[in-house]
Amino acid sequence: MFPQHVIARKRDGAALSAEEITAFVRGATDGSWADYQLTAMLMAIFLNGMTPAEVAAYTEAMMHSGTVADLSQVPGRKVDKHSTGGVGDKVSLPLAAMVSACGVPVPMISGRGLGHSGGTLDKLESIPGFNVSLSLADYAAQVARIGCALIGQTQDLAPSDKKLYALRDVTATVECIPLICGSIMSKKLAEGIDGLVLDVKFGRAAFMKDLDQARELATAMVEIGRAMGKEVRALLTAMDQPLGRAVGNAVEVAESVACLRGEGPADLMEVTTALGVEMLLIGRVVDTAPAARAMLDRVVADGSALRKFAEIVEAQGGDPRVTVDPTGVLPQAKLQMPVPAERDGVVSDVDGMAVALAALRLGAGRTRAEDNVDPAVGITALVKLGERVEAGQPLAVIHANDDTAGREAEVKLRDGITISDTVPEPRPLIAERIG
Amino acid sequence: MFPQHVIARKRDGAALSAEEITAFVRGATDGSWADYQLTAMLMAIFLNGMTPAEVAAYTEAMMHSGTVADLSQVPGRKVDKHSTGGVGDKVSLPLAAMVSACGVPVPMISGRGLGHSGGTLDKLESIPGFNVSLSLADYAAQVARIGCALIGQTQDLAPSDKKLYALRDVTATVECIPLICGSIMSKKLAEGIDGLVLDVKFGRAAFMKDLDQARELATAMVEIGRAMGKEVRALLTAMDQPLGRAVGNAVEVAESVACLRGEGPADLMEVTTALGVEMLLIGRVVDTAPAARAMLDRVVADGSALRKFAEIVEAQGGDPRVTVDPTGVLPQAKLQMPVPAERDGVVSDVDGMAVALAALRLGAGRTRAEDNVDPAVGITALVKLGERVEAGQPLAVIHANDDTAGREAEVKLRDGITISDTVPEPRPLIAERIG
Repeated sequence: MFPQHVIARKRDGAALSAEEITAFVRGATDGSWADYQLTAMLMAIFLNGMTPAEVAAYTEAMMHSGTVADLSQVPGRKVDKHSTGGVGDKVSLPLAAMVSACGVPVPMISGRGLGHSGGTLDKLESIPGFNVSLSLADYAAQVARIGCALIGQTQDLAPSDKKLYALRDVTATVECIPLICGSIMSKKLAEGIDGLVLDVKFGRAAFMKDLDQARELATAMVEIGRAMGKEVRALLTAMDQPLGRAVGNAVEVAESVACLRGEGPADLMEVTTALGVEMLLIGRVVDTAPAARAMLDRVVADGSALRKFAEIVEAQGGDPRVTVDPTGVLPQAKLQMPVPAERDGVVSDVDGMAVALAALRLGAGRTRAEDNVDPAVGITALVKLGERVEAGQPLAVIHANDDTAGREAEVKLRDGITISDTVPEPRPLIAERIG
Repeated sequence: MFPQHVIARKRDGAALSAEEITAFVRGATDGSWADYQLTAMLMAIFLNGMTPAEVAAYTEAMMHSGTVADLSQVPGRKVDKHSTGGVGDKVSLPLAAMVSACGVPVPMISGRGLGHSGGTLDKLESIPGFNVSLSLADYAAQVARIGCALIGQTQDLAPSDKKLYALRDVTATVECIPLICGSIMSKKLAEGIDGLVLDVKFGRAAFMKDLDQARELATAMVEIGRAMGKEVRALLTAMDQPLGRAVGNAVEVAESVACLRGEGPADLMEVTTALGVEMLLIGRVVDTAPAARAMLDRVVADGSALRKFAEIVEAQGGDPRVTVDPTGVLPQAKLQMPVPAERDGVVSDVDGMAVALAALRLGAGRTRAEDNVDPAVGITALVKLGERVEAGQPLAVIHANDDTAGREAEVKLRDGITISDTVPEPRPLIAERIG
């Protein structure tokens, strides 16, 4: 099977066979397809699409391009969560602790997001000593022992996805729903899970700008899961203003700890709980959504979720005192710069993208994969839509290690925050549930 | 200007600016675009097309990616011919001699066709000693001295086309009219010509299967020529049965010599003369088509075209006695195998593609660029549509260097020749004239 013949078929709009798709995916790692053939194929897929059967074959081939984690020795149904990414989205941290505290094992392998703020791994690594680089064997053993592990992608997990993603990134073939689906689902299914809950974000600060796109992506991923015998559900959640009040790395860990103490911002708790409900239902530890919600509230209220987080942190080499003294344990930026409001009024807009760019300017994210993030910098105490402010009162606090960066971040932040006289129309945070 | 941003614009169907197209073409040779970015772009062009302005910018950028030959010291209007390629198409050989014998300089740089039979260069190289690898300086000097040079593409002529063509060949992006146009026209315009006549073939043994496609390609090329200040005309010619009676390399040289002696097959002479008429008109050595035709007939009848061919062969190191004793000079295959007709009747079909595959089996062509062709093998004395044959009389003579190959070629050849009781409807060889 010559690569150019398979490319020609996709170019002409044909639906490829599972054999053809497997040859393409295998070609990405064994070198039987040249990089320039892979990218011609990716562009043909981008422009001509893939059928659900093709996406399932693509996902399966990518999943089997490396090791599939074996969690069969872990009792219970293993359930993970994946988010398409948003500003201030630290949900994975409190959620993993809460759900595993409820008895559902959470095996979570995350990426090192190339976003405006760091990814889950960057946030975890701001905890001194925290090691995200476990082997798949150690990861499986930790899930068996304490019900959760939070690690980074290993070299042997879906390597063809790693290869293809790097090529997509430089050939304008990232924003393609079948390719996105395959990339996400192949890695998640290789974790050894029984079920998955997806948080598909939409809005100006999300990858998907509108609800229709988000629904299309979510539906495609739920279908792949079904085709592969996994229980997959998705929530479509709005991403206009940041989630919570903190954006950065250490500052998001501190906010996660606050959540687990029952002191989290309402929007962050709402999304975390809604995703947790789905995970408990898939995990079969409860039968109904209200029962799930009650169980999640209880593990926060009785401190068991916070203890679970400390247990995970300790198991992975981090300092568990982060759960009792976040400020003492986490790195702190040199400068704390409040951003005072210039007038009285009501917060009518907080543009998540502007906040993200401010955080990026501070050094909290990366523009290239090889960049390092600064764990200490970021934004806290960010106002939320609909809140009343008075002139001089802070709209946020900027944590900077450099005065110039802090001032430039302030300009970006101010650009994104609008104060007016009218209260904005509230918009639901969780728009739809799929699957 | 990042490659991925330019790719994204073409992916989304935009018409690219001349600057963007130049960046892409320059990127093919200076390495500022990776191969995997070039092929993603080629697939986006294949699927989303290019406007006439984009094709003109693409052609111009490719032409200027290397040296543009300077023929300004050659008096008169320099005119070349390009054919999209067909089975038995040796027109370039007699045509170059006839037109330059009429006083129109013919600077001709040809490719080494990756077709079923050899390209013009392969045919010329079957003449012992013939050297197609002249430098551009020697090429220009020879055109100035004797009015014609027949050479191969040099490294410094449109190198970006060479690079992009090699990538297209392995990524299913060859059959794309804007890319074909740019490829042909950039090389031809880099020859230093004032005008160009195109022989755009259509039919089952041609690259373009139908007349509409051929017209589209021809029109696009004529427009590029106009945009770049060159006089370009095209003939659309049928390619169902092979042109002439010989298919191979040395055997096609022998048939070319026969043409120049006034003994060529009627169809081959018809196409050669029609293209020659256009070249003489563009060359301004005559004012009317009948005058051009008369001049072409005269240079054949008085032997000056044959002497011009001998002069070209000698200038390029070949043995000029090929014009007086082709059989003595040209390599001969070991076996001459007549293919007798199995019944009486009229030739109602000669499938050019079947004949081409027979020639390929003998070793007259190549399936990969690195293959060598066997100069001696091929097919001669091939019957033509509408001819009456008797059982036992040869339909063709196979020239083979290997008995098995000869027998297998015979099977393919027989598959392509149909003898029936009814005379086929004659179809015009020259369908249209454009420009």
